[in-house]
Amino acid sequence: MSDTYAFQKLSAAAALRILEAGMAKAQEMGIPQCITVVDEGGNLLAFVRMDGARFNSIDSSRHKAITAASSGRPSGLSKPEDAVFLAVTTQGRNVNLKGGIPIIVDGRCIGGIGVGSGTGDQDREVALAALRAIKDAKKDFDFGPR
Amino acid sequence: MSDTYAFQKLSAAAALRILEAGMAKAQEMGIPQCITVVDEGGNLLAFVRMDGARFNSIDSSRHKAITAASSGRPSGLSKPEDAVFLAVTTQGRNVNLKGGIPIIVDGRCIGGIGVGSGTGDQDREVALAALRAIKDAKKDFDFGPR
Amino acid sequence: MSDTYAFQKLSAAAALRILEAGMAKAQEMGIPQCITVVDEGGNLLAFVRMDGARFNSIDSSRHKAITAASSGRPSGLSKPEDAVFLAVTTQGRNVNLKGGIPIIVDGRCIGGIGVGSGTGDQDREVALAALRAIKDAKKDFDFGPR
Amino acid sequence: MSDTYAFQKLSAAAALRILEAGMAKAQEMGIPQCITVVDEGGNLLAFVRMDGARFNSIDSSRHKAITAASSGRPSGLSKPEDAVFLAVTTQGRNVNLKGGIPIIVDGRCIGGIGVGSGTGDQDREVALAALRAIKDAKKDFDFGPR
Repeated sequence: MSDTYAFQKLSAAAALRILEAGMAKAQEMGIPQCITVVDEGGNLLAFVRMDGARFNSIDSSRHKAITAASSGRPSGLSKPEDAVFLAVTTQGRNVNLKGGIPIIVDGRCIGGIGVGSGTGDQDREVALAALRAIKDAKKDFDFGPR
Repeated sequence: MSDTYAFQKLSAAAALRILEAGMAKAQEMGIPQCITVVDEGGNLLAFVRMDGARFNSIDSSRHKAITAASSGRPSGLSKPEDAVFLAVTTQGRNVNLKGGIPIIVDGRCIGGIGVGSGTGDQDREVALAALRAIKDAKKDFDFGPR
Repeated sequence: MSDTYAFQKLSAAAALRILEAGMAKAQEMGIPQCITVVDEGGNLLAFVRMDGARFNSIDSSRHKAITAASSGRPSGLSKPEDAVFLAVTTQGRNVNLKGGIPIIVDGRCIGGIGVGSGTGDQDREVALAALRAIKDAKKDFDFGPR
Repeated sequence: MSDTYAFQKLSAAAALRILEAGMAKAQEMGIPQCITVVDEGGNLLAFVRMDGARFNSIDSSRHKAITAASSGRPSGLSKPEDAVFLAVTTQGRNVNLKGGIPIIVDGRCIGGIGVGSGTGDQDREVALAALRAIKDAKKDFDFGPR
């Protein structure tokens, strides 16, 4: 049995392009944002806090990115009755707030994007715009009835 | 593109006047309070624990101030279903309790006031009284239906 | 007495240019680095982890940046007999490791750069190269006999 | 510029074989051990606490593995004057204790092994024995004069 398996890791260059795409959208919307990119293991890859973005969103945008990267689905979709336990048991790393989007290429989750400082819907919109920087990434997500 | 942008920072002298105004109101109400002032980045600027105020409010008044300074709106107005996540994901810095008021001058949030040791409504009343020390600060807030 | 005082805040755009300048130097040296930029209050402004940089340096590069931004001098210059206390009492935010450089413009510290993943001397070299992105920033530091 | 780069990730099957190899050595030595395997991002991949091993070594063996995986060299080789800062600034994740060994294949660090419950030298011996489960991994390390 092989000791290793092949994986395509998200590059720092791609992460910086994700920030730029997110910033462009946020500027267009007129809402400064914190934008975080984490890798497939939840480690921080790139971050920017736009001028005037909320400082509490430095951490929460990271946690949204981690939530999406770990689960392979957008954040903010947990069942309400599970959400608090998930947050507490992961020290807030699993957070049921909108604005986290997984980066999925060839069916594999290679990272996550987290955005915070606007409303949940605005955050999600910016995260989806940021994801467009990754041409081959999955773009269609089911956000369900919520 | 410029490396910096102009910002008016809250002075220590102003922060002490905020404490004094808050203390005067708390004394008038007969309820000792913890009063915290933070700057626009959430860092502690001034603090007083009045004789007999609850020691647990040392931290919670700071978290209320931080919540208001980060979001630019009074604390205690988050949706109930988001409140726990926000708290856990920010290590309690984003707290959905009444008593935090942002300090907004010329449309920019330059800090926050947090008050704790009374009921939520008493805390909010003292925070609003404390804010009156800043002549040019925004005074009218929408506290919504809650 | 005035309620506020004027301050020039480091912009997100400038912070991203700092990352780019640091990355260019690190690439030239052949050593991937974690590069952090914090503002004058120690809050995270921008970050990148270059491909292959040490993941433990995600935090330590931030702490170096915070150390420099708080003290207004390069990190790694504390007296050995003070260094441990400073680290413990600040939960590692004040760290006596090379690689942190303050961003000082017009005599005022407006942020800090922290670099980590190489040797201390390599980290410092990249931080100084990154600082060159800010034309008006103080560039001459006394690193003393150590 | 490409969005991703190729990486060979350590498999769970390989991680379990590392545990087995380490356990065999520990049994031969008559010293129960905690053995941790982490991936290249420091995340837990496999772990066993042998009967009677110290429970405090659950965490410290993980931190040794993380230290080795992050730096690409055995743990316990930092300069004494840096060791405390490194520990504090990384919340103990970077620990200057013997018993951590990086897993390096084709020049790339793909994980770390951490062992704890014996003396430092015993821990290191078990970690090196565990590493033998990975045929292609680098086996010769310079442990220096310490």
